Amino acid sequence: MSPLENDTLLRALAREPTDYTPLWLMRQAGRYLPEYNALRARAGSFLALAKTPALACEVTLQPLERFPLDAAILFSDILTVPDAMGLGLYFADGEGPRFERPLRDEAAIRRLAAPDPAAELDYVLEAVRQIRRALAGRVPLIGFSGSPYTLACYMVEGSGSSDFPALKKMLFARPDLLHHILEINAQAVAAYLNAQIEAGAQAVMIFDTWGGNLSAAGYEEYSLAYARRVLAALTRRHDGRKVPAILFTKGGGQWLESMAASGFDAIGLDWTADAAQARHRVGARVALQGNLDPAALYAPPERVRAEARRVLDAFGPTPGHVFNLGHGITPQASPDAVAALVDEVRTYSRAMRESRPAASRARPASA
Amino acid sequence: MSPLENDTLLRALAREPTDYTPLWLMRQAGRYLPEYNALRARAGSFLALAKTPALACEVTLQPLERFPLDAAILFSDILTVPDAMGLGLYFADGEGPRFERPLRDEAAIRRLAAPDPAAELDYVLEAVRQIRRALAGRVPLIGFSGSPYTLACYMVEGSGSSDFPALKKMLFARPDLLHHILEINAQAVAAYLNAQIEAGAQAVMIFDTWGGNLSAAGYEEYSLAYARRVLAALTRRHDGRKVPAILFTKGGGQWLESMAASGFDAIGLDWTADAAQARHRVGARVALQGNLDPAALYAPPERVRAEARRVLDAFGPTPGHVFNLGHGITPQASPDAVAALVDEVRTYSRAMRESRPAASRARPASA
Repeated sequence: MSPLENDTLLRALAREPTDYTPLWLMRQAGRYLPEYNALRARAGSFLALAKTPALACEVTLQPLERFPLDAAILFSDILTVPDAMGLGLYFADGEGPRFERPLRDEAAIRRLAAPDPAAELDYVLEAVRQIRRALAGRVPLIGFSGSPYTLACYMVEGSGSSDFPALKKMLFARPDLLHHILEINAQAVAAYLNAQIEAGAQAVMIFDTWGGNLSAAGYEEYSLAYARRVLAALTRRHDGRKVPAILFTKGGGQWLESMAASGFDAIGLDWTADAAQARHRVGARVALQGNLDPAALYAPPERVRAEARRVLDAFGPTPGHVFNLGHGITPQASPDAVAALVDEVRTYSRAMRESRPAASRARPASA
Repeated sequence: MSPLENDTLLRALAREPTDYTPLWLMRQAGRYLPEYNALRARAGSFLALAKTPALACEVTLQPLERFPLDAAILFSDILTVPDAMGLGLYFADGEGPRFERPLRDEAAIRRLAAPDPAAELDYVLEAVRQIRRALAGRVPLIGFSGSPYTLACYMVEGSGSSDFPALKKMLFARPDLLHHILEINAQAVAAYLNAQIEAGAQAVMIFDTWGGNLSAAGYEEYSLAYARRVLAALTRRHDGRKVPAILFTKGGGQWLESMAASGFDAIGLDWTADAAQARHRVGARVALQGNLDPAALYAPPERVRAEARRVLDAFGPTPGHVFNLGHGITPQASPDAVAALVDEVRTYSRAMRESRPAASRARPASA
């Protein structure tokens, strides 16, 4: 493998000083890019892109051709694991993901088994290998999965939902069944992420898209406890480097202290979290990733730049900030706005560091 | 008007000691009740119920016939104000509220004017008058409106949304237009709530259903600032009594300190907020209302009772807790589960007070 030319992301995730604040964007390969839409039209569907390693590789690299981003993220779906479990992932036109066979009876739940990634998710692992070769060391590659709880939400409900009545009914009426699903999911996600690391992912992220629909006690019991189990089973070093793990719970800002104490290297914040307060609440214990409102990319470039500065100022100079949106970039975002954002984050965060008195820069002697 | 027989709610909202924890449920008059569905079928639609004072009155009282609730809440919609502004509220089958004429151009926004409640919302005021007569002092009546920001979300987007792209585009590209809408909305909501108070509402609540889609800074600027303007213009005493005002922001748990400092008598918490932490964060400055997950009503009765006790224990013995769900009751909830909930809250909260040593009971000498 080629040596890594730009390790700014990995250093920020390790809370080491960096010359500027690294930036990548959730869903940076996506529908706001005309070249993505063109390739998707040729492939026929999102899933065809995601399940064809050469296409997933091409799509993953598209945003890096336009913008000086500090990471690539595997182009895939958060629901590949339950798809490999046989639930039948599909996308209805213009809607979110659905499962053909949601988990609605106890027998089906008892039959659930963690898939063998090498056998049943090799299309993902092959994409990881191809992306690593294509990146040739430019920036690190982030692998990912949905969290055990978020997978369970879709597996039980069969689709996204504003309130997940089937899932919640199971949670309150048959918590034993939900715990069984979550246990299998935790094993499956750990094996899947370890296979991605083995194939070349240099950092991993767990997307807990729906953890925010739980009560505070429920979040501990049904989401965070199983994210911790995944973490405990993860390969933490590979190829001579630490493999940082990031946990993102949309709507999880109220539970930041528990997330920060969970052992993950970094916590992703959605755009509703007050970044300055978040930094104050967790101190230097973890890196923080976020948290610009994705809708800020609807603003004219000067406003985008002002919003970027506001976020950087709020996180402040403590090492360990990775700039990101607070949720995935939307199809309506303009590539020009993204260009302005990326430029401003790089320029302003570099200037922030240069304007600090040299004596206060926490830079290691070797730098 | 008849004297109030049960003022437990009003005393809890004033943070005075009560013999038990008062309880009402958001959407307590709704589709989980067979008698509601029967009346709605006869009326033809939700809006026909809401716009016919005699039917709105009948529906408002239905849950009180079944359960010993401590308040009635006006049966109406949060979007009556923009409907009276001419936007054309309607409900597509099986979907949420929509507007025929959403605010999409500057000219329409500049034409917007606060409606005169006596002229254009008299069906609501007449319902309030009829409900007060029908209640005959059994329990207090709560009036309500959507918050200026939540109204704006629907007015600009034209419907509910997972991410409100049209609203957010205006917020980031033309904040001046959004501020203009919010200013008109604040005037309109204040006049509307004052008219409800004049007609007989004994407490008022502002539902900020979508404030949680903002950043922390955005919540201050676009939601809370305008809720405060409403509050500043509210009639605070009527008919010899204080009229308490409650603010509920779904997803607002992170901003509890700002909400508690806003001057409202009580803050509604959704089910994601940790009640014990919330009480710790705001102390005795405000009453708190909430916050059982509405999905807990899918559980068998014994589990419902256990969840009710958990919520009561979390809020603790500080005076100023009003038991409620963390969001509206869902159509799938069972009336039997509601009965178990109401009974447990009454019984357990009474026992909580009785088990405390007499010396520590903060009871006024007159009680």
